[in-house]
Amino acid sequence: MEPISSSSVVDALNWRYATKQFDPERKIPSDDWAAIEQSLVLTPSSFGLQPWKFIVVDDPAVREAILPNAWNQRQVVDCSHLVVIAAVTDLGEEEVDKLINVSAEKRGVEPAVLDGYREMMLGMIVKGMDADQRRAWAVRQGYIALGNLMTVAAMLQVDACPMEGFVPAEVDKILGLPERGLTAALLCPLGYRAAEDKYADAPKVRYPVEDLIERV
Amino acid sequence: MEPISSSSVVDALNWRYATKQFDPERKIPSDDWAAIEQSLVLTPSSFGLQPWKFIVVDDPAVREAILPNAWNQRQVVDCSHLVVIAAVTDLGEEEVDKLINVSAEKRGVEPAVLDGYREMMLGMIVKGMDADQRRAWAVRQGYIALGNLMTVAAMLQVDACPMEGFVPAEVDKILGLPERGLTAALLCPLGYRAAEDKYADAPKVRYPVEDLIERV
Repeated sequence: MEPISSSSVVDALNWRYATKQFDPERKIPSDDWAAIEQSLVLTPSSFGLQPWKFIVVDDPAVREAILPNAWNQRQVVDCSHLVVIAAVTDLGEEEVDKLINVSAEKRGVEPAVLDGYREMMLGMIVKGMDADQRRAWAVRQGYIALGNLMTVAAMLQVDACPMEGFVPAEVDKILGLPERGLTAALLCPLGYRAAEDKYADAPKVRYPVEDLIERV
Repeated sequence: MEPISSSSVVDALNWRYATKQFDPERKIPSDDWAAIEQSLVLTPSSFGLQPWKFIVVDDPAVREAILPNAWNQRQVVDCSHLVVIAAVTDLGEEEVDKLINVSAEKRGVEPAVLDGYREMMLGMIVKGMDADQRRAWAVRQGYIALGNLMTVAAMLQVDACPMEGFVPAEVDKILGLPERGLTAALLCPLGYRAAEDKYADAPKVRYPVEDLIERV
C-alpha cells in the first residue's frame, strides 16, 4: 500500500468549504457512497466504544420537517445524502459488554481475557461520569466522526456542509431518537456544490500557521 | 485536481490504529510534517472561529513532565511529534473581531460588510452561552481537529495515538495554558509504530455497517 501524496491531501483540504448551495440534481455515486459509509464505520472513538449511529435521511418529507429546525438552511433538503450523527445519550454496561463481546470474537479470545479493558471503560465512562457528562462525552465523540467525514469527503471530491445550527430536541423528535437513547449531535449534508454557490471561490480564511502552531 | 481513489482512502483508514508503541528513533520527515501542519490549519470549525492552538511538544523534559499526567502512556515521550490540541476557554468579542478583520482583509471588503456574520457569532457563542458552555463548545471543536488529524496522518502513513486519558489541569499547568486562556482538550502523539507493537496487527473492532448506519 502506497501512502497518499501530501500535496493531494493538502489540495483536497484547500478544495473543501462549507457548501452553502448544493446541486439538487447530482447524487453521490454508489462506489463513493460505499467508501463514505466504510469511513464512518472506521471512525476512531475513545476506547473503541463507537457511541453513535449515523442516520442517512433520504425521505423528502423528513428532510422538509428538519428544514425549519435547521435555520432553514436549504442544504438539508438539496443535498445528495443528509447524514445525522446521533450520539448515545447514556452509555452503560450494556454497550460496554457489547464491545467486549465483539472484541473477544474478533480477536479469538474469551471475553474474560478482556476484563481489565472492561473495568477501565466502566470506571471511566459508566461509573466515573454522571448522566450529563456521559451525554457530553458521546456528543464530543461525534465531532471526531464529523472531522473524519469532512476530510474523507474532501479526498473524494464530495462536498459537505457541517452543521451545529439546528434544534436537537426537534430533530430528535422527528427521527424518534430519544426513545432509542440517542440524540442528534451534528448534521452533515453531502453532495455537490451548485454552480451558483459563490462561496465556492471565496478565499479560505485561516489564521497563519505561526499563529496556530507553536513549538515547545 | 484529481480526487483520491476511494479504495486508497478506505485502505488508509483500515491501516491506522491507536498506536501503543512508537519507534523512538523514527522521525516524521519535514515534508510530511509540513502537510500535517497545513492540515491542522485547514481544519474546519464552527463559523470558522478556529478556537484553538496546536502545541507541538519537542522538549524531552516537558514530555517527561506530561508522562505521569497521561497515565504513563509512553507514546507521549516516544513519539516523533506530540501535538496538544488546546482550546480557547472563554471565547469573546475579541476573537470574533479578529476573525471578522482577517475575513474582511482576505475577501477584500470592509469589516462592516460582515456585521451580520459578526452579530450571529456574538449571539450564538459569546452572548448565547455561559462560560462553561463556551469552554465545552471550544473543546468539542478540538475533536473535529483530532478527527481531521488522525485521518490525514493515516493518508500519509503516519501513525497516531489519540488520547483523552490525561489530567487536563496538570498538563495545562505544565504548558502554562490557563494564563493564556487555553486548556488542553486532547493529546495526539504522532510518528511510526514500533516493530514490537503487537496491536498493529490486531483485527480492527468495528460494529457492522448495518448496525451503525441507518436509512430513513
